Amino acid sequence: MDLTETKISSEPIFEGTFLTISRDKIRLPNGKESSRLVARHPGATCVLAVTDDDKVILVRQWRYALGKPLLELPAGKLDVDGEDTEACALRELEEETCYRAERAKLVHTFYTAPGFCDEKMYLYLAEGISEGSSLENDEDEFTETVLMSREEIKAAILNNEIEDGKTLVGLQYWLLNS
Amino acid sequence: MDLTETKISSEPIFEGTFLTISRDKIRLPNGKESSRLVARHPGATCVLAVTDDDKVILVRQWRYALGKPLLELPAGKLDVDGEDTEACALRELEEETCYRAERAKLVHTFYTAPGFCDEKMYLYLAEGISEGSSLENDEDEFTETVLMSREEIKAAILNNEIEDGKTLVGLQYWLLNS
Repeated sequence: MDLTETKISSEPIFEGTFLTISRDKIRLPNGKESSRLVARHPGATCVLAVTDDDKVILVRQWRYALGKPLLELPAGKLDVDGEDTEACALRELEEETCYRAERAKLVHTFYTAPGFCDEKMYLYLAEGISEGSSLENDEDEFTETVLMSREEIKAAILNNEIEDGKTLVGLQYWLLNS
Repeated sequence: MDLTETKISSEPIFEGTFLTISRDKIRLPNGKESSRLVARHPGATCVLAVTDDDKVILVRQWRYALGKPLLELPAGKLDVDGEDTEACALRELEEETCYRAERAKLVHTFYTAPGFCDEKMYLYLAEGISEGSSLENDEDEFTETVLMSREEIKAAILNNEIEDGKTLVGLQYWLLNS
């Protein structure tokens, strides 16, 4: 079955510092017209970093859109001008926590909200972790570092204390593969 | 540490059929001002449905924002007026695939893109699966049903063929708990 939807025209709605939104008129596979809201995002990285004593490094961060803090993997948007994804993952770990890593290995890429947004998430596994960060957090970003053992993570998933999609992907990847 | 960010004012940017976007001026924990882009979304459900012969029911669907199809759990937005989440999950399974379920159990809720959007995803596990659907797909939605065995799913995750965040959460949950 041909599933392709093609663009007929695009109406710009909003252009922000990292998000650009348009409403496109499209042609459906059956030839009819419809419309799609599209949010363009630069993409982001998140990083699974595990200490020598088998604890995952998480951050607690206020999420304004939700009105509450979430417990998440360290993560951040790519610079709009096309930052290297591994460099972004390493930088975010060091900015948001009191740890750094020598290198990071890409384990998966996925789309966070493909129904309307093209945000692509790069999940990295950090290697060569050490304590101590020389980078400051972004000035409008406040985070707390939280270390969790394997048993604590299993319990936190079961109790729905992990409420962030990318973090669930990363933690379940770790439980399945280590 | 107090992480709370509070709203000072809100500038409406866009009001669509399911997404409402504003730019809010906020007060940071350190007392300084900053701004946050906020997308309000009605929330959505996705459903992990496994046949009697241990195959997961997936759908292949065109994702216009990405310009390609993705392989996903059956899923759909809640009606903006507050649809029951279990009913939404059962309806989406039946609309998007040639299967239906008697009931569904909530296994997890999570936020798909908490950096700017409040979309909350309800992951359901369907029970009492049978073949045959009496519901039509939405008229602007075209999907193909795809059945995948446990080994096929493991391989598809490893090969990065599963590129949708909620679907990774659901499939990893299944691999970890069954």
